[in-house]
Amino acid sequence: MTNHSPTPSPTPGAIPHERLSVDRRVRLLGRRGCTIWLTGLPASGKSTIALLIEEMQLAKKIPALILDGDTLRHGLNAGLGFDAYGRAEAVRRAGESALLLAESGAIAIVSMVSPYRSDRDAVRARHNKLGIAFVEVFVDVPLVVAESRDPKGLYKKARAGEILAFTGVSDPYEAPIHPDVHVKTNESSAQECAIKICASLTA
Amino acid sequence: MTNHSPTPSPTPGAIPHERLSVDRRVRLLGRRGCTIWLTGLPASGKSTIALLIEEMQLAKKIPALILDGDTLRHGLNAGLGFDAYGRAEAVRRAGESALLLAESGAIAIVSMVSPYRSDRDAVRARHNKLGIAFVEVFVDVPLVVAESRDPKGLYKKARAGEILAFTGVSDPYEAPIHPDVHVKTNESSAQECAIKICASLTA
Repeated sequence: MTNHSPTPSPTPGAIPHERLSVDRRVRLLGRRGCTIWLTGLPASGKSTIALLIEEMQLAKKIPALILDGDTLRHGLNAGLGFDAYGRAEAVRRAGESALLLAESGAIAIVSMVSPYRSDRDAVRARHNKLGIAFVEVFVDVPLVVAESRDPKGLYKKARAGEILAFTGVSDPYEAPIHPDVHVKTNESSAQECAIKICASLTA
Repeated sequence: MTNHSPTPSPTPGAIPHERLSVDRRVRLLGRRGCTIWLTGLPASGKSTIALLIEEMQLAKKIPALILDGDTLRHGLNAGLGFDAYGRAEAVRRAGESALLLAESGAIAIVSMVSPYRSDRDAVRARHNKLGIAFVEVFVDVPLVVAESRDPKGLYKKARAGEILAFTGVSDPYEAPIHPDVHVKTNESSAQECAIKICASLTA
Protein backbone atom coordinates (compact mmCIF):
# COMPACT_ATOMS: atom_id res chain seq x y z
CA MET A 1 0.00 0.00 0.00
CA THR A 2 1.29 3.40 -0.97
CA ASN A 3 0.86 6.66 0.87
CA HIS A 4 1.08 9.59 -1.49
CA SER A 5 -1.50 11.95 0.02
CA PRO A 6 0.30 15.09 1.04
CA THR A 7 -2.90 16.82 2.18
CA PRO A 8 -1.84 20.47 2.19
CA SER A 9 -2.22 22.45 5.39
CA PRO A 10 -4.53 25.46 5.53
CA THR A 11 -2.81 28.62 4.38
CA PRO A 12 -1.66 30.52 7.48
CA GLY A 13 -3.76 33.60 8.25
CA ALA A 14 -6.83 32.40 6.35
CA ILE A 15 -9.73 32.49 8.80
CA PRO A 16 -12.77 30.44 7.72
CA HIS A 17 -15.97 32.48 7.60
CA GLU A 18 -19.31 31.97 9.26
CA ARG A 19 -21.11 29.29 7.33
CA LEU A 20 -24.59 27.88 7.11
CA SER A 21 -24.65 24.50 8.85
CA VAL A 22 -25.25 21.42 6.70
CA ASP A 23 -28.34 20.59 8.80
CA ARG A 24 -29.93 24.01 8.37
CA ARG A 25 -29.29 23.87 4.63
CA VAL A 26 -30.93 20.45 4.44
CA ARG A 27 -33.96 21.80 6.30
CA LEU A 28 -34.26 24.77 3.93
CA LEU A 29 -33.75 22.81 0.71
CA GLY A 30 -35.47 19.63 1.85
CA ARG A 31 -32.68 17.56 0.37
CA ARG A 32 -29.35 16.13 1.47
CA GLY A 33 -26.50 15.77 -1.04
CA CYS A 34 -23.82 13.10 -1.11
CA THR A 35 -20.80 11.92 -3.04
CA ILE A 36 -20.79 8.68 -5.02
CA TRP A 37 -17.18 7.76 -5.72
CA LEU A 38 -16.65 5.24 -8.55
CA THR A 39 -13.17 3.71 -8.48
CA GLY A 40 -11.82 0.97 -10.73
CA LEU A 41 -9.40 0.05 -13.47
CA PRO A 42 -9.38 1.97 -16.75
CA ALA A 43 -12.20 0.58 -18.95
CA SER A 44 -13.94 -1.01 -15.96
CA GLY A 45 -17.16 0.80 -16.90
CA LYS A 46 -17.13 3.73 -14.46
CA SER A 47 -18.16 6.42 -16.95
CA THR A 48 -21.01 4.40 -18.42
CA ILE A 49 -22.39 3.75 -14.95
CA ALA A 50 -21.87 7.39 -13.95
CA LEU A 51 -23.94 8.60 -16.93
CA LEU A 52 -26.76 6.23 -16.02
CA ILE A 53 -26.78 7.32 -12.36
CA GLU A 54 -26.80 10.97 -13.40
CA GLU A 55 -29.74 10.38 -15.72
CA MET A 56 -31.70 8.46 -13.08
CA GLN A 57 -31.26 11.26 -10.55
CA LEU A 58 -32.04 14.10 -12.96
CA ALA A 59 -35.19 12.27 -14.07
CA LYS A 60 -36.28 12.60 -10.42
CA LYS A 61 -35.36 16.35 -10.51
CA ILE A 62 -32.47 15.69 -8.14
CA PRO A 63 -29.40 17.73 -9.15
CA ALA A 64 -26.50 15.44 -9.98
CA LEU A 65 -23.22 16.06 -11.75
CA ILE A 66 -20.42 13.82 -12.94
CA LEU A 67 -16.86 14.74 -12.01
CA ASP A 68 -14.94 12.67 -14.49
CA GLY A 69 -11.21 12.22 -13.95
CA ASP A 70 -10.27 12.81 -17.59
CA THR A 71 -12.58 15.79 -18.04
CA LEU A 72 -11.30 17.41 -14.83
CA ARG A 73 -7.82 17.28 -16.30
CA HIS A 74 -9.03 19.89 -18.80
CA GLY A 75 -10.24 22.18 -16.00
CA LEU A 76 -9.69 21.98 -12.25
CA ASN A 77 -6.89 19.41 -12.60
CA ALA A 78 -5.29 20.76 -15.77
CA GLY A 79 -1.54 20.39 -15.77
CA LEU A 80 -1.33 17.68 -13.12
CA GLY A 81 0.60 14.59 -14.17
CA PHE A 82 -0.02 10.90 -13.66
CA ASP A 83 2.77 10.41 -11.15
CA ALA A 84 1.86 9.68 -7.54
CA TYR A 85 1.76 13.37 -6.61
CA GLY A 86 -0.35 14.28 -9.63
CA ARG A 87 -2.81 11.47 -8.96
CA ALA A 88 -3.06 12.29 -5.25
CA GLU A 89 -3.64 15.98 -5.92
CA ALA A 90 -6.17 15.23 -8.70
CA VAL A 91 -8.11 13.00 -6.31
CA ARG A 92 -7.89 15.56 -3.52
CA ARG A 93 -9.24 18.41 -5.68
CA ALA A 94 -11.98 16.21 -7.12
CA GLY A 95 -12.89 15.29 -3.54
CA GLU A 96 -13.04 18.94 -2.45
CA SER A 97 -15.22 19.87 -5.43
CA ALA A 98 -17.48 16.90 -4.78
CA LEU A 99 -17.82 18.09 -1.18
CA LEU A 100 -18.97 21.52 -2.36
CA LEU A 101 -21.47 19.98 -4.76
CA ALA A 102 -22.78 17.62 -2.10
CA GLU A 103 -22.97 20.44 0.43
CA SER A 104 -25.10 22.40 -2.06
CA GLY A 105 -27.56 19.48 -2.04
CA ALA A 106 -26.49 17.78 -5.26
CA ILE A 107 -25.30 14.25 -5.86
CA ALA A 108 -21.67 14.43 -6.92
CA ILE A 109 -20.77 11.40 -9.03
CA VAL A 110 -16.99 11.06 -9.19
CA SER A 111 -15.66 8.74 -11.86
CA MET A 112 -11.91 8.34 -11.47
CA VAL A 113 -9.47 5.45 -11.53
CA SER A 114 -8.16 6.85 -8.19
CA PRO A 115 -5.86 3.86 -7.76
CA TYR A 116 -4.41 4.60 -4.32
CA ARG A 117 -6.36 3.64 -1.22
CA SER A 118 -4.83 6.37 0.93
CA ASP A 119 -5.98 9.09 -1.47
CA ARG A 120 -9.55 7.80 -1.43
CA ASP A 121 -9.49 7.39 2.35
CA ALA A 122 -8.37 11.01 2.72
CA VAL A 123 -11.41 12.12 0.71
CA ARG A 124 -13.67 9.97 2.88
CA ALA A 125 -12.15 11.52 6.00
CA ARG A 126 -12.87 15.03 4.69
CA HIS A 127 -16.48 14.05 4.03
CA ASN A 128 -16.83 12.54 7.50
CA LYS A 129 -15.40 15.69 9.05
CA LEU A 130 -18.01 17.87 7.31
CA GLY A 131 -20.88 15.42 7.92
CA ILE A 132 -21.49 14.59 4.27
CA ALA A 133 -22.14 11.06 3.04
CA PHE A 134 -19.42 9.41 0.96
CA VAL A 135 -20.37 6.25 -0.93
CA GLU A 136 -17.33 4.40 -2.25
CA VAL A 137 -18.22 2.11 -5.14
CA PHE A 138 -15.78 -0.49 -6.39
CA VAL A 139 -16.38 -0.89 -10.12
CA ASP A 140 -14.79 -4.30 -10.35
CA VAL A 141 -13.74 -6.18 -13.44
CA PRO A 142 -10.90 -8.63 -14.06
CA LEU A 143 -7.91 -6.92 -15.67
CA VAL A 144 -8.09 -9.26 -18.65
CA VAL A 145 -11.66 -8.16 -19.35
CA ALA A 146 -10.87 -4.44 -19.02
CA GLU A 147 -7.89 -4.94 -21.29
CA SER A 148 -9.98 -6.74 -23.90
CA ARG A 149 -12.44 -3.80 -23.98
CA ASP A 150 -9.79 -1.09 -24.25
CA PRO A 151 -12.11 1.46 -25.94
CA LYS A 152 -9.41 4.13 -26.19
CA GLY A 153 -6.56 1.73 -27.06
CA LEU A 154 -4.71 2.81 -23.93
CA TYR A 155 -3.92 -0.69 -22.60
CA LYS A 156 -2.38 -1.50 -25.97
CA LYS A 157 -0.22 1.61 -25.80
CA ALA A 158 0.74 0.85 -22.20
CA ARG A 159 1.79 -2.72 -23.12
CA ALA A 160 3.85 -1.28 -25.96
CA GLY A 161 5.54 1.05 -23.49
CA GLU A 162 4.09 4.15 -25.13
CA ILE A 163 2.30 5.16 -21.91
CA LEU A 164 4.23 5.00 -18.68
CA ALA A 165 2.68 4.44 -15.25
CA PHE A 166 -0.60 3.04 -16.60
CA THR A 167 -2.82 1.64 -13.87
CA GLY A 168 -3.19 -2.14 -14.09
CA VAL A 169 -0.19 -2.54 -16.38
CA SER A 170 2.76 -0.58 -15.04
CA ASP A 171 1.19 1.11 -12.02
CA PRO A 172 -0.69 -0.48 -9.12
CA TYR A 173 -4.43 -0.47 -8.51
CA GLU A 174 -5.38 -0.79 -4.87
CA ALA A 175 -8.92 -2.15 -4.70
CA PRO A 176 -11.18 -0.95 -1.87
CA ILE A 177 -11.16 -3.38 1.04
CA HIS A 178 -14.62 -2.45 2.36
CA PRO A 179 -16.40 -0.56 -0.43
CA ASP A 180 -19.89 0.71 0.37
CA VAL A 181 -21.10 -0.85 -2.88
CA HIS A 182 -19.37 -3.51 -4.99
CA VAL A 183 -20.43 -3.99 -8.60
CA LYS A 184 -18.95 -6.43 -11.12
CA THR A 185 -19.28 -5.16 -14.66
CA ASN A 186 -18.41 -8.50 -16.23
CA GLU A 187 -21.35 -10.16 -14.47
CA SER A 188 -23.98 -7.39 -14.48
CA SER A 189 -25.06 -4.83 -17.04
CA ALA A 190 -24.20 -1.17 -16.49
CA GLN A 191 -27.91 -0.55 -15.96
CA GLU A 192 -28.06 -3.18 -13.21
CA CYS A 193 -24.96 -1.71 -11.54
CA ALA A 194 -26.41 1.82 -11.64
CA ILE A 195 -29.69 0.63 -10.14
CA LYS A 196 -27.84 -1.16 -7.35
CA ILE A 197 -25.83 1.99 -6.56
CA CYS A 198 -28.87 4.27 -6.57
CA ALA A 199 -30.73 1.83 -4.34
CA SER A 200 -27.91 2.09 -1.79
CA LEU A 201 -28.58 5.83 -1.46
CA THR A 202 -32.04 5.33 -0.06
CA ALA A 203 -31.21 2.22 1.94
CA MET B 1 -2.50 45.82 -14.91
CA THR B 2 -0.87 42.58 -13.99
CA ASN B 3 -1.10 39.30 -15.79
CA HIS B 4 -0.50 36.43 -13.44
CA SER B 5 -2.92 33.85 -14.83
CA PRO B 6 -0.89 30.86 -15.92
CA THR B 7 -3.97 28.86 -16.92
CA PRO B 8 -2.57 25.34 -16.99
CA SER B 9 -2.91 23.31 -20.16
CA PRO B 10 -4.96 20.13 -20.20
CA THR B 11 -2.92 17.12 -19.15
CA PRO B 12 -1.76 15.33 -22.32
CA GLY B 13 -3.60 12.07 -22.98
CA ALA B 14 -6.67 12.99 -20.93
CA ILE B 15 -9.67 12.61 -23.22
CA PRO B 16 -12.83 14.40 -21.98
CA HIS B 17 -15.81 12.07 -21.69
CA GLU B 18 -19.25 12.26 -23.16
CA ARG B 19 -21.20 14.78 -21.13
CA LEU B 20 -24.78 15.87 -20.76
CA SER B 21 -25.24 19.24 -22.45
CA VAL B 22 -26.00 22.24 -20.27
CA ASP B 23 -29.26 22.78 -22.19
CA ARG B 24 -30.49 19.23 -21.69
CA ARG B 25 -29.67 19.43 -17.98
CA VAL B 26 -31.61 22.69 -17.71
CA ARG B 27 -34.61 21.05 -19.42
CA LEU B 28 -34.50 18.07 -17.03
CA LEU B 29 -34.01 20.10 -13.85
CA GLY B 30 -36.08 23.10 -14.88
CA ARG B 31 -33.40 25.41 -13.55
CA ARG B 32 -30.28 27.14 -14.83
CA GLY B 33 -27.36 27.77 -12.49
CA CYS B 34 -24.93 30.65 -12.55
CA THR B 35 -21.94 32.13 -10.77
CA ILE B 36 -22.12 35.36 -8.78
CA TRP B 37 -18.58 36.62 -8.28
CA LEU B 38 -18.13 39.17 -5.47
CA THR B 39 -14.82 41.01 -5.73
CA GLY B 40 -13.62 43.88 -3.55
CA LEU B 41 -11.15 45.03 -0.92
CA PRO B 42 -10.77 43.13 2.35
CA ALA B 43 -13.60 44.25 4.69
CA SER B 44 -15.63 45.68 1.80
CA GLY B 45 -18.61 43.57 2.90
CA LYS B 46 -18.44 40.65 0.46
CA SER B 47 -19.08 37.87 3.00
CA THR B 48 -22.03 39.63 4.62
CA ILE B 49 -23.65 40.15 1.22
CA ALA B 50 -22.85 36.57 0.20
CA LEU B 51 -24.63 35.17 3.27
CA LEU B 52 -27.72 37.28 2.51
CA ILE B 53 -27.81 36.18 -1.15
CA GLU B 54 -27.45 32.54 -0.11
CA GLU B 55 -30.30 32.86 2.38
CA MET B 56 -32.57 34.58 -0.16
CA GLN B 57 -32.00 31.84 -2.71
CA LEU B 58 -32.39 28.95 -0.26
CA ALA B 59 -35.63 30.48 1.00
CA LYS B 60 -36.87 30.04 -2.58
CA LYS B 61 -35.62 26.40 -2.57
CA ILE B 62 -32.93 27.31 -5.09
CA PRO B 63 -29.64 25.57 -4.24
CA ALA B 64 -26.92 28.12 -3.55
CA LEU B 65 -23.51 27.81 -1.97
CA ILE B 66 -20.86 30.30 -0.92
CA LEU B 67 -17.30 29.71 -2.02
CA ASP B 68 -15.43 31.94 0.34
CA GLY B 69 -11.79 32.73 -0.38
CA ASP B 70 -10.61 32.23 3.19
CA THR B 71 -12.61 29.06 3.76
CA LEU B 72 -11.37 27.56 0.50
CA ARG B 73 -7.83 28.00 1.78
CA HIS B 74 -8.68 25.30 4.34
CA GLY B 75 -9.81 22.91 1.59
CA LEU B 76 -9.47 23.15 -2.18
CA ASN B 77 -6.91 25.97 -1.98
CA ALA B 78 -5.03 24.78 1.11
CA GLY B 79 -1.33 25.48 0.92
CA LEU B 80 -1.52 28.20 -1.75
CA GLY B 81 0.16 31.46 -0.77
CA PHE B 82 -0.82 35.08 -1.24
CA ASP B 83 1.78 35.83 -3.92
CA ALA B 84 0.62 36.47 -7.47
CA TYR B 85 0.79 32.78 -8.39
CA GLY B 86 -1.06 31.68 -5.26
CA ARG B 87 -3.79 34.25 -5.79
CA ALA B 88 -4.15 33.40 -9.49
CA GLU B 89 -4.36 29.66 -8.80
CA ALA B 90 -6.79 30.19 -5.90
CA VAL B 91 -9.06 32.23 -8.17
CA ARG B 92 -8.74 29.68 -10.98
CA ARG B 93 -9.71 26.73 -8.75
CA ALA B 94 -12.58 28.68 -7.16
CA GLY B 95 -13.74 29.50 -10.69
CA GLU B 96 -13.61 25.85 -11.78
CA SER B 97 -15.54 24.73 -8.69
CA ALA B 98 -18.09 27.48 -9.22
CA LEU B 99 -18.50 26.25 -12.79
CA LEU B 100 -19.26 22.74 -11.57
CA LEU B 101 -21.78 24.04 -9.03
CA ALA B 102 -23.44 26.28 -11.61
CA GLU B 103 -23.49 23.44 -14.14
CA SER B 104 -25.29 21.30 -11.57
CA GLY B 105 -28.02 23.97 -11.44
CA ALA B 106 -26.94 25.77 -8.27
CA ILE B 107 -26.05 29.41 -7.73
CA ALA B 108 -22.37 29.55 -6.86
CA ILE B 109 -21.64 32.66 -4.79
CA VAL B 110 -17.90 33.34 -4.83
CA SER B 111 -16.67 35.80 -2.22
CA MET B 112 -12.99 36.53 -2.82
CA VAL B 113 -10.82 39.64 -2.88
CA SER B 114 -9.56 38.35 -6.28
CA PRO B 115 -7.58 41.55 -6.83
CA TYR B 116 -6.25 40.92 -10.35
CA ARG B 117 -8.44 41.70 -13.34
CA SER B 118 -6.78 39.13 -15.56
CA ASP B 119 -7.55 36.32 -13.11
CA ARG B 120 -11.23 37.26 -12.96
CA ASP B 121 -11.39 37.67 -16.73
CA ALA B 122 -9.97 34.17 -17.17
CA VAL B 123 -12.78 32.78 -15.00
CA ARG B 124 -15.34 34.71 -17.04
CA ALA B 125 -13.85 33.30 -20.25
CA ARG B 126 -14.19 29.73 -18.92
CA HIS B 127 -17.84 30.38 -18.06
CA ASN B 128 -18.50 31.85 -21.50
CA LYS B 129 -16.87 28.84 -23.12
CA LEU B 130 -19.17 26.45 -21.25
CA GLY B 131 -22.27 28.61 -21.72
CA ILE B 132 -22.75 29.38 -18.03
CA ALA B 133 -23.68 32.85 -16.76
CA PHE B 134 -21.02 34.76 -14.84
CA VAL B 135 -22.14 37.81 -12.88
CA GLU B 136 -19.22 39.93 -11.73
CA VAL B 137 -20.17 42.13 -8.78
CA PHE B 138 -17.90 44.95 -7.67
CA VAL B 139 -18.33 45.32 -3.91
CA ASP B 140 -17.07 48.86 -3.77
CA VAL B 141 -16.05 50.84 -0.73
CA PRO B 142 -13.41 53.54 -0.23
CA LEU B 143 -10.19 52.11 1.19
CA VAL B 144 -10.42 54.43 4.19
CA VAL B 145 -13.85 53.01 5.08
CA ALA B 146 -12.73 49.37 4.69
CA GLU B 147 -9.69 50.15 6.82
CA SER B 148 -11.81 51.78 9.53
CA ARG B 149 -13.98 48.63 9.74
CA ASP B 150 -11.07 46.16 9.86
CA PRO B 151 -13.05 43.42 11.68
CA LYS B 152 -10.10 41.03 11.76
CA GLY B 153 -7.46 43.66 12.49
CA LEU B 154 -5.68 42.76 9.25
CA TYR B 155 -5.28 46.29 7.91
CA LYS B 156 -3.64 47.26 11.18
CA LYS B 157 -1.23 44.36 10.90
CA ALA B 158 -0.54 45.21 7.25
CA ARG B 159 0.24 48.87 8.13
CA ALA B 160 2.57 47.62 10.84
CA GLY B 161 4.35 45.45 8.29
CA GLU B 162 3.27 42.22 10.00
CA ILE B 163 1.39 41.05 6.87
CA LEU B 164 3.14 41.40 3.54
CA ALA B 165 1.35 41.81 0.20
CA PHE B 166 -1.95 42.88 1.72
CA THR B 167 -4.45 44.06 -0.88
CA GLY B 168 -5.15 47.78 -0.63
CA VAL B 169 -2.09 48.47 1.50
CA SER B 170 0.96 46.81 0.00
CA ASP B 171 -0.60 44.95 -2.94
CA PRO B 172 -2.77 46.36 -5.74
CA TYR B 173 -6.52 45.99 -6.14
CA GLU B 174 -7.67 46.23 -9.74
CA ALA B 175 -11.34 47.23 -9.71
CA PRO B 176 -13.62 45.82 -12.43
CA ILE B 177 -13.98 48.24 -15.34
CA HIS B 178 -17.39 46.99 -16.45
CA PRO B 179 -18.85 44.95 -13.58
CA ASP B 180 -22.24 43.38 -14.20
CA VAL B 181 -23.42 44.83 -10.89
CA HIS B 182 -21.83 47.63 -8.87
CA VAL B 183 -22.75 48.04 -5.21
CA LYS B 184 -21.37 50.60 -2.76
CA THR B 185 -21.40 49.33 0.79
CA ASN B 186 -20.73 52.74 2.32
CA GLU B 187 -23.91 54.10 0.72
CA SER B 188 -26.28 51.10 0.87
CA SER B 189 -26.97 48.45 3.48
CA ALA B 190 -25.81 44.88 2.88
CA GLN B 191 -29.47 43.91 2.54
CA GLU B 192 -30.00 46.51 -0.20
CA CYS B 193 -26.89 45.33 -2.03
CA ALA B 194 -28.00 41.69 -1.86
CA ILE B 195 -31.46 42.56 -3.18
CA LYS B 196 -29.92 44.51 -6.08
CA ILE B 197 -27.66 41.57 -6.97
CA CYS B 198 -30.47 39.00 -6.81
CA ALA B 199 -32.68 41.26 -8.92
CA SER B 200 -29.98 41.25 -11.62
CA LEU B 201 -30.31 37.47 -11.92
CA THR B 202 -33.88 37.65 -13.15
CA ALA B 203 -33.43 40.84 -15.16
